[in-house]
Amino acid sequence: MHGGSGVISLEKDILRRNEELAAEVRELLRRSGVRAFDIMGSVGSGKTTIIEQLVDMLKAEGVRCAAITGDVAGDCDYQRLVQHGIPAKNINTGKQCHLDSHLVLHALENFNLREIDVLFIENVGNLVCPADFPLGAEKRVVVISVTEGDDIVRKHPLIFQLADIVVLNKIDLAEFVGVEPQTVVKDFRKISPNGKIFLTNAKSGEGLAEFKNALLS
Amino acid sequence: MHGGSGVISLEKDILRRNEELAAEVRELLRRSGVRAFDIMGSVGSGKTTIIEQLVDMLKAEGVRCAAITGDVAGDCDYQRLVQHGIPAKNINTGKQCHLDSHLVLHALENFNLREIDVLFIENVGNLVCPADFPLGAEKRVVVISVTEGDDIVRKHPLIFQLADIVVLNKIDLAEFVGVEPQTVVKDFRKISPNGKIFLTNAKSGEGLAEFKNALLS
Repeated sequence: MHGGSGVISLEKDILRRNEELAAEVRELLRRSGVRAFDIMGSVGSGKTTIIEQLVDMLKAEGVRCAAITGDVAGDCDYQRLVQHGIPAKNINTGKQCHLDSHLVLHALENFNLREIDVLFIENVGNLVCPADFPLGAEKRVVVISVTEGDDIVRKHPLIFQLADIVVLNKIDLAEFVGVEPQTVVKDFRKISPNGKIFLTNAKSGEGLAEFKNALLS
Repeated sequence: MHGGSGVISLEKDILRRNEELAAEVRELLRRSGVRAFDIMGSVGSGKTTIIEQLVDMLKAEGVRCAAITGDVAGDCDYQRLVQHGIPAKNINTGKQCHLDSHLVLHALENFNLREIDVLFIENVGNLVCPADFPLGAEKRVVVISVTEGDDIVRKHPLIFQLADIVVLNKIDLAEFVGVEPQTVVKDFRKISPNGKIFLTNAKSGEGLAEFKNALLS
């Protein structure tokens, strides 16, 4: 959130409007039989790689995937995902630091929803702002990387409280960056005793089957 | 930036007010003989480690340092910096995804500015939002890590255009994450042909002397 006390009521209006549109997104997806997942996390945490892997796994099972990619600028993530043969829509938010339901609602116009089973919504790379803007997805996932430091949960408790599932990625790099993954897991357990957290190495695929099962459960 | 078209004029007011207060910060620091540097970058890019190293180097030269640490929640970075024997002030922004000049102006009340030569302002870990909010610092630095991917500049051109200096950190991990640092350098050169970029390994200290010299030049 930007701004100070003078903008609090306006921000409440923005958040309420986003919630209303999130309900519209949710209802549209429900009617169309699409399960959508909001994938949040910092730049470089591994969101795109994880989606790429899940798309390949799900395609092999006959599940029809699609993706919306949100970025401030450019279409790097979008270009990676369409390589996997799925319909996708890129959203450039310009200066906006997160996706919102209005953007997602319009992006959905670009898909034939009846031909999609699972929609991945890759949020803008940012661990702060997306938290306040639910997008009407069935589950919200936070992807973090061990390279972000073992104090990551303590620094950003809100988004971890909101998350349905947390993925701690790049565990193969833990020893190189001197981070103990269990410290992150313990911090997460303190604020979300029953929360789900998976340790993954998205490049090798380690841990992704367990994450996929939890996501689609 | 949050919100849609309905909030553009209000956002302009917020940005203008921030600029006015940034001018106040700048004048206060100038009168007091303090050189301030705004250190921006994602969570885990290495901002705190770089400041820690620079503080130790500068202390050895008789330069009196201080720090302001901005975080959404907690005081992990603050606790690390005070271990280096410098005055510091922690700012928790709550839901706000960046520092602003108003917060910095108030934080400055906690220091004896006449006894400080160099002030590091560690911004909230976020590569998007701090760009719009100059803090009255002499230089703005963006710290990125090779673990954030080699498309980082293409994804976030604005903050790299604004930066006086860019630090590409954790170059020791480049081969493990399959990132070619020169790709990042080339992308940066395209949008900032004369911009300064330094490749560092903050843990070992590699590249930091060159960065320090450019910062204080």
